[in-house]
Amino acid sequence: MSAGDYVGFVAGAFVTFSLVPQTVRVFKLKSAREISLVFTTMLLVGILMWLAYGIYFRLVPVILWNAIGATLVATLMYAKLKYGRQDQ
Amino acid sequence: MSAGDYVGFVAGAFVTFSLVPQTVRVFKLKSAREISLVFTTMLLVGILMWLAYGIYFRLVPVILWNAIGATLVATLMYAKLKYGRQDQ
Repeated sequence: MSAGDYVGFVAGAFVTFSLVPQTVRVFKLKSAREISLVFTTMLLVGILMWLAYGIYFRLVPVILWNAIGATLVATLMYAKLKYGRQDQ
Repeated sequence: MSAGDYVGFVAGAFVTFSLVPQTVRVFKLKSAREISLVFTTMLLVGILMWLAYGIYFRLVPVILWNAIGATLVATLMYAKLKYGRQDQ
């Protein structure tokens, strides 16, 4: 792996796993009023499209990060629907 | 552009612009208690690394989406520091 590939690998990890503290925070507070349902929906659609892109071009890192990302965003969306339904 | 490239282009637009409704929502509510500062920090670091990756490999779409994304996340982080400082 080149230095450039390494940067891409670490960058993907940061972006994907950034969703972990956000999702944990919403479950901890049991409140998701401020989380936008449009945000979670657009993000999920985008990530699923990246996943399709990765499968189509057989790009293993793209498949990996987006499969994990889709699971995390789906969890955040579940939290939004559970704890923030009244608003949006 | 192939059908695959088109999917990647639209996927990037969805992921990047998903941050717009989230940022707007926080400014509208004037509250960012539920937004995780760790989330915004990790996301900003990851996006800036993708930007460096795009510049290094001269990938115009990677540069474009991540430059826009970095601006949006920086705005969300500003909102978190302004409206949610007391918590994290």
